[in-house]
Order: sequence, then C-alpha cells, then structure tokens
Amino acid sequence: MASNITWHAGSVSLTERQDLLKQKGLTIWFTGLSASGKSTLATALEQTLLHAGIISYRLDGDNIRFGLNKNLGFGPDDRTENIRRISEVAKLFADSTVIAITAFISPYRQDRDTARQLHQEAGIPFVEVFADAPLEVVEQRDPKGLYKKAKAGEIKEFTGISAPYEAPEKPEIHIRTDQVSVEEGVKAVIKYLVDQGYIAADKIKQ
Amino acid sequence: MASNITWHAGSVSLTERQDLLKQKGLTIWFTGLSASGKSTLATALEQTLLHAGIISYRLDGDNIRFGLNKNLGFGPDDRTENIRRISEVAKLFADSTVIAITAFISPYRQDRDTARQLHQEAGIPFVEVFADAPLEVVEQRDPKGLYKKAKAGEIKEFTGISAPYEAPEKPEIHIRTDQVSVEEGVKAVIKYLVDQGYIAADKIKQ
Repeated sequence: MASNITWHAGSVSLTERQDLLKQKGLTIWFTGLSASGKSTLATALEQTLLHAGIISYRLDGDNIRFGLNKNLGFGPDDRTENIRRISEVAKLFADSTVIAITAFISPYRQDRDTARQLHQEAGIPFVEVFADAPLEVVEQRDPKGLYKKAKAGEIKEFTGISAPYEAPEKPEIHIRTDQVSVEEGVKAVIKYLVDQGYIAADKIKQ
Repeated sequence: MASNITWHAGSVSLTERQDLLKQKGLTIWFTGLSASGKSTLATALEQTLLHAGIISYRLDGDNIRFGLNKNLGFGPDDRTENIRRISEVAKLFADSTVIAITAFISPYRQDRDTARQLHQEAGIPFVEVFADAPLEVVEQRDPKGLYKKAKAGEIKEFTGISAPYEAPEKPEIHIRTDQVSVEEGVKAVIKYLVDQGYIAADKIKQ
C-alpha cells in the first residue's frame, strides 16, 4: 500500500482545494442585449486568462444550448430553467477553482439575483458585468439579422423588442461597448479581478 | 490599448487550451451499486490528484442532486435526464482541462454509453470504472440502511433489489471493492491514467 496516497473521508473543502491548487474560482456573469458584445468580451477575457496560465472556462450558447440545455425552449419557464442550470454549472466550475465566464442575455433581474445568491451561499465570488450598448446601436449592428426579424414579427419574444431586458442596477462592472474597445473592456475586468485579490497581480500584466 | 492582451475571434480550441494550461481533461465515470464504494474511491482519487496539484472535480449526489438536478425525481425518465445532465457537465469540465470524476449508480448501460459517446464526439477521453462488489456484500455494508428499507418495500425501484443494475461489459477499469483496499483501487486508476498518457508520470508518485 503506497504511503503517498493521501486522503481523508469526506469532501475536500473549498479553502483546502484553493490552497492545493494555488488558485481561486469565481463566476464572471456577462449580461446584455443580443449583439451587445457579451460573447466577444467573454471570449477575449477567457483567452487573456488562459494565456496567463489561469484556468477559465466560458459557458455560452454554443456549448450549453446544444448540450446541457438542448431540451429547453424559449418560453418564460424554460428561460428561467436555462439560467438556473447555467448558474448551477458556473458555481460548480468556480467551486473547482476555475474562473467561470457566462455570456447569456439573462434579461431578468431575478434570475441573475438567484445566480448571485447561489454563489454567495457557497462563499464564491460573483461578478456581474453589464455589456451595455443602446438599443439603437445593437439594432444597427444586428450581425445575425435578428432584430430585423423580431421587428417584422418573425421572431417572437425577442429581448429588447418584444420581451423586456432588465438592466442591472448595481453590476460590479459596467462596460459601454459602444464607447470602449474590446481590449479596454477586458482590461477593466482584469483590473477588477486583481484589485479584489481574485487573481494575483504578478500572474497577469495589466 | 495594451499589447499584452492576446485574443482572436472565436473559441479557443481544445488542443490550444491544453497547450496553454499544460494539462488534459478527461472524465472518470464510476458506476456501481449503492454502497459499492464508488464515492469513497472517487473521493480518494480526487484528493490524490489534488495533492499532486492536478485539478480534478467530483460530481456526486451531494453537489448535483441538491443543485443542478434538484428538479428531478427518481422515475425512469428523470433518472435518464439525471445522468444526461451529469454527462454534459462532466464533458464541459473535461473540455476545460479538469479531470472530472462522477460517482453515481448510473445503472443503465445505455445511459453510460450515451455519456461515453458524448465525450468521444468531442475528442475527450472517457474512463469507465466499475466499482464492483457482490450484492450480498453491499447488502451487508448497507451504511444508510437503504437495502433493508428496499427489501421491506419502503423504498421503491431500488437498484439491485427492485430495479436492475446493468453491469459494464468492458469497463476500462474493474475494481472489486470487496477484495482490494481503497488505496489499491486509487492506485489502479492512477496507473491507468499514467499508462494512457493522460497525466504525466512525473506529476504523481505511483
């Protein structure tokens, strides 16, 4: 029997895990209208962290809607269940010491607050980032022609057109994506993470 | 604009992520009867990996049934949905380069095969570990008195008593938990991971 196998009964605590891996997890929750720049910012942030050797993982429509949440539609109940599952998975990632990054419209304040509460109860930081651009700007961008279709009534319950978007009242970070570059947006998030002590200043250039 | 922020459009590929973080993810899927020793083995394996500085994360009843899957019951459809969601989440963890460890009875061969296929399609290794102890042994152990209750008809559809357990036909690893110690079981898994090149031999003592 090898003496080098170390274990004790029960789960590894959050702080024990953080000490062993020398890193802390948290969830960075992007919210904003379609075409507000959430995914672009989230992608750039994830890459920046990975290039600094910091494990991070992005949950977005591509890997969630066609996987975990493929059995959900777009009605109100399914939208809430969509965000609930994403919140739970982000929390698991953050608990594992990964920096989880979510990029979903997540239009309802209550759903985002539930996500925040879930993290707070587990002692895991939750950072809400508002990717904010005025409706006229995102309608102008409209890379997939979705706003056009929504206005023509071809898409029902489209956030900002025929369904509400409840803007965050006190997000940890507010990025006006029509006023700053992607690089500046990412820098603002990184600065926040360093200032809060979530990532070590010497791990990443600011 | 900082030149040190590096990013490109689109997602980071699996191999790029593995190169940046110098680690590879995979899923280690424990299956076996209640009280077969799945959770004990999974816990000891997770701790051994963490103590070697290798990020791993265990999905089990405690963090899944009361979180992500708290809206599922124990009927056939809900059992399948339970395992489906766990498969999807394990795959996400493995995709992020974490070693995901799942510890659920997962009695149906088809559900486990679906989990395997999901991983294979994503190019992520899937290691099925059969925590195997004869029914008479687990009935004897019965730490929570569940077998007793099941036999008395107080619990319906209990795996091994009133619901089937379909043993793996070709698991990557087969551990007779009534014949080997926890340490020996963990060593067998670690040896497999090293032999397959999933973790570096110099990272962990065998």
